[in-house]
Amino acid sequence: MGKEPKGRAPHSALGQESLLLHASGRPGKIEVVPTKPLTTQRDLSLAYSPGVAAPCLEIADDPSKAYDYTAKGNLVGVISNGTAVLGLGNLGALASKPVMEGKAVLFKRFADVDSIDLEIDTEDVDAFVNAVRYLGPTFGGINLEDIKAPECFIIEQRLRELMDIPVFHDDQHGTAIISLAGTINALDLTGRSMKDVRIVVNGAGAAAIACVELIKTAGVPHDNVTLCDTKGVIYKGRTEGMNQWKSAHAVDTKARTLEEALRGADMFLGLSAKGAVTRDMVKTMAAKPIIFAMANPDPEITPEEVKAARSDAIAATGRSDYPNQINNVLGFPYIFRGALDVRARTINDEMKLAAAHAIAALAREDVPDEVAAAYSGRRLRFGPEYIIPVPFDPRLISSIPVAVAKAAMETGVAQRPIADLEAYRHKLAARLDPTVSSLGAIFEEVKNAPCRVVFAEGEEEKSIRAALAYRNAGHGTPILIGRADRIQAAMTEQGLGESVEGIEIHNSSLSTRTDAYADFLYKRLQRKGALVRDCQRMAKLDRNIFAACMVAMGDADAMVT
Amino acid sequence: MGKEPKGRAPHSALGQESLLLHASGRPGKIEVVPTKPLTTQRDLSLAYSPGVAAPCLEIADDPSKAYDYTAKGNLVGVISNGTAVLGLGNLGALASKPVMEGKAVLFKRFADVDSIDLEIDTEDVDAFVNAVRYLGPTFGGINLEDIKAPECFIIEQRLRELMDIPVFHDDQHGTAIISLAGTINALDLTGRSMKDVRIVVNGAGAAAIACVELIKTAGVPHDNVTLCDTKGVIYKGRTEGMNQWKSAHAVDTKARTLEEALRGADMFLGLSAKGAVTRDMVKTMAAKPIIFAMANPDPEITPEEVKAARSDAIAATGRSDYPNQINNVLGFPYIFRGALDVRARTINDEMKLAAAHAIAALAREDVPDEVAAAYSGRRLRFGPEYIIPVPFDPRLISSIPVAVAKAAMETGVAQRPIADLEAYRHKLAARLDPTVSSLGAIFEEVKNAPCRVVFAEGEEEKSIRAALAYRNAGHGTPILIGRADRIQAAMTEQGLGESVEGIEIHNSSLSTRTDAYADFLYKRLQRKGALVRDCQRMAKLDRNIFAACMVAMGDADAMVT
Repeated sequence: MGKEPKGRAPHSALGQESLLLHASGRPGKIEVVPTKPLTTQRDLSLAYSPGVAAPCLEIADDPSKAYDYTAKGNLVGVISNGTAVLGLGNLGALASKPVMEGKAVLFKRFADVDSIDLEIDTEDVDAFVNAVRYLGPTFGGINLEDIKAPECFIIEQRLRELMDIPVFHDDQHGTAIISLAGTINALDLTGRSMKDVRIVVNGAGAAAIACVELIKTAGVPHDNVTLCDTKGVIYKGRTEGMNQWKSAHAVDTKARTLEEALRGADMFLGLSAKGAVTRDMVKTMAAKPIIFAMANPDPEITPEEVKAARSDAIAATGRSDYPNQINNVLGFPYIFRGALDVRARTINDEMKLAAAHAIAALAREDVPDEVAAAYSGRRLRFGPEYIIPVPFDPRLISSIPVAVAKAAMETGVAQRPIADLEAYRHKLAARLDPTVSSLGAIFEEVKNAPCRVVFAEGEEEKSIRAALAYRNAGHGTPILIGRADRIQAAMTEQGLGESVEGIEIHNSSLSTRTDAYADFLYKRLQRKGALVRDCQRMAKLDRNIFAACMVAMGDADAMVT
Repeated sequence: MGKEPKGRAPHSALGQESLLLHASGRPGKIEVVPTKPLTTQRDLSLAYSPGVAAPCLEIADDPSKAYDYTAKGNLVGVISNGTAVLGLGNLGALASKPVMEGKAVLFKRFADVDSIDLEIDTEDVDAFVNAVRYLGPTFGGINLEDIKAPECFIIEQRLRELMDIPVFHDDQHGTAIISLAGTINALDLTGRSMKDVRIVVNGAGAAAIACVELIKTAGVPHDNVTLCDTKGVIYKGRTEGMNQWKSAHAVDTKARTLEEALRGADMFLGLSAKGAVTRDMVKTMAAKPIIFAMANPDPEITPEEVKAARSDAIAATGRSDYPNQINNVLGFPYIFRGALDVRARTINDEMKLAAAHAIAALAREDVPDEVAAAYSGRRLRFGPEYIIPVPFDPRLISSIPVAVAKAAMETGVAQRPIADLEAYRHKLAARLDPTVSSLGAIFEEVKNAPCRVVFAEGEEEKSIRAALAYRNAGHGTPILIGRADRIQAAMTEQGLGESVEGIEIHNSSLSTRTDAYADFLYKRLQRKGALVRDCQRMAKLDRNIFAACMVAMGDADAMVT
């Protein structure tokens, strides 16, 4: 078992706080709790002997009933031997446990997937495979984690063949999927296509190989991708430090170093080490270069340095303190959610591509206020600084699993297809938020009786967003009070699109109803000393009064200010 | 994988209800939940990358820190291959899952031990061992379950040798421990000793062999135990249907059948099958015979039949609908609780014996009202109908783990001894009941200022129990108002012991204070028209008035009525 030498650097403040968190209360981060009552002797007879014989016999007769009577269908094993823990290297099985528990926590928090970590104390491929291969009845899926290359390739491949549940090595495919999502959007923003983009990948570990494979599956031609490792370019004919996985991606090229390979390249994908890329290298890249520097915890080159070298670049990293974080948490919880929900036998390439496209699509949609609030100070609007959604975006749960489930069904690996994907989408949204399901019922009623809602401060960004959301949700007709040209300009500026279809815009100064509202006001206010003139001014100039009058006189059903 | 044939009998009403329970809401019975917050980006940085690197590095430096920073120290793997599920036989790994999840639920419910079920899909001993042996970093202990004999003996033995955490096959040792506890009390009630009792054991599976081994460890001589299987008595020299585990317990005897073996025997331990013992066999046993008919779900002979054959018998079964249930749930949650809390490397014989004695001792104590209420209609008082505690007795958690932890420390297998076992006992009581810890603080204060509490209805069973509990808890001096002989008789009748030490008994008719109380009453009541005579009668005859006067005049601090 590998060990860090004694005398390493002291922990950062964040590290110290993390230690306190892990040790506080119940040590660690997970707990296994009953979902059924166990208060009385009768509860005991139902959940355990003798009543439990009934589900056992049912499953013995029909194995698929394990999904009805046990937690199998929602349970994922997070399995590692700790040979490649984060960016820390081979710490051994035991020391990887905090990461694996963390993974279990993320599964639950982001996609309501129950999962348990298993640390397997062996570096031997056969021993590892033999420890996992018989666990099929236990789990609905297996998430392999932090196993070093090239063993991870063999382990995953063999377990995929031996087991009838999805086996997914997240370090490979999770990273590949999220970086592909970012790639899709970066190509879109820079006017490139998968067919033409020239990509240089640095690093030839588990994640890098998987990234290369997935971008090729997504349409990038073999010869357009140059893979480099610590010895330089992996070219056809190279013999030093090769293995079958590197060989598969060797290309004919004269370039021998990363520096040479990057000249004129459109995109850099880094899964290597801090500082591997310099400003000078970035300067030699094509116009509007795309730099994904994903080494953890420190990127191959920082976004600041990228910008200093090339102001037209798009940069992404693995870090949460920069824009465009390529974070696996955007993927694995939702990919397993979708795979489990259709009882997929495996997670295939089509499902991975579907996940990447769903993630990419989400970044192009307008971001809800709750997300913007959580990331205050950051502009979350599709563009070079926002090519990928943020982890706490609550729309991820209702978007990605649907795409994954659909791809599973279309490729025939779904053992229980979902007929109504729209209903599934709603269920997903409700899964993490109990209020959604009850509010959902209210929304359904609202939809059946569409309302006219007037947003008084119609030129404000908040009002426009709310009006668009109200329209898009099909709740009824939103009305904005304000000047049409100003509203249109604000929408364009904020990237909210051009279309005001389905939205009414009323300018109180120009409206044919203003006089009627002034009369209405005068009738109610004359006893308090208001003059006709005052009331006309109020209706014309005060948008809140105008909006209130609309509701009072039946021109709208409700008002928001 | 074994399967029940199609066309088996339909499920009972209980079975039907159990199916509904298992399928309702979230399928199955367990869920894995985070114990730390994960709401913000910062939470994510602490619980996962990059903050999680700190606990990983700490554990890499010092493996024992896994107990501080992960859930390992409170996590038990419930592991089976489903080859001997309940009384149902070999249903296979998948179909055993409801039982294993049930076990996980019991661990949590009764002893706050987190556990997860692993179903291993192989009947091969080597494959099973190889699947489990590397899981040491994952768990604090391993509970093997429902694995058939003789494979279970080899599997447990090998895993115990290979792993540095407790490995405990509950079907063997759990059953052995609980039946030993019952045996201790049954021998006590019938005036027998371990040295002299003659026991016949029917069945030679995992549980039976373990029971035989443990009763011998507890002091029953080898030659006093006759083991039988389906082929009859296992005598020295028998060759048919033998294995090394049976041979170890073969005895010199002329008896060849269970019937012959039972003649004159003191005790029968059945771990075999429904109906294996007849009334006629019971009639041939010694005086006050002890019959533990533990076959599941139907005993070797029902308690009704035992009583019909011999009114002087003590009977126990595995069922909750008869008195004296030999139920493993009395053992494994608490045994692991104690073992985990001292980080025991193993669960040894001394720990098993300590658990059995702690369970037996609890049955001899007075049962708290809350337990009696949960089992309304049953007399839970030490005697032939109550030789073993009931599963929902809340004192189990503060009693058994302490005994187990102590034995672990005394035998040198505790890696983290507990210095203050009394404080540990209090922590255990608080573990499942958050109110206990805050009330505990109040009780501590009460102890420091002992109070005199007068129980007015002193001849009532409830008052006597409350007074005893008050005294035993060290809260102060209880005072019972009533006739000493009546109170003493009630105590004897209800099995509450003889000792009134520490309890004051005041008879209002005879008390020297009665006149003073009458004066006190007269002073307060004369204006309302009460005569001296009336007040004397009140103080003498009404226990509630007498008790109230005690408090009013400072002879007691509080009154309970």
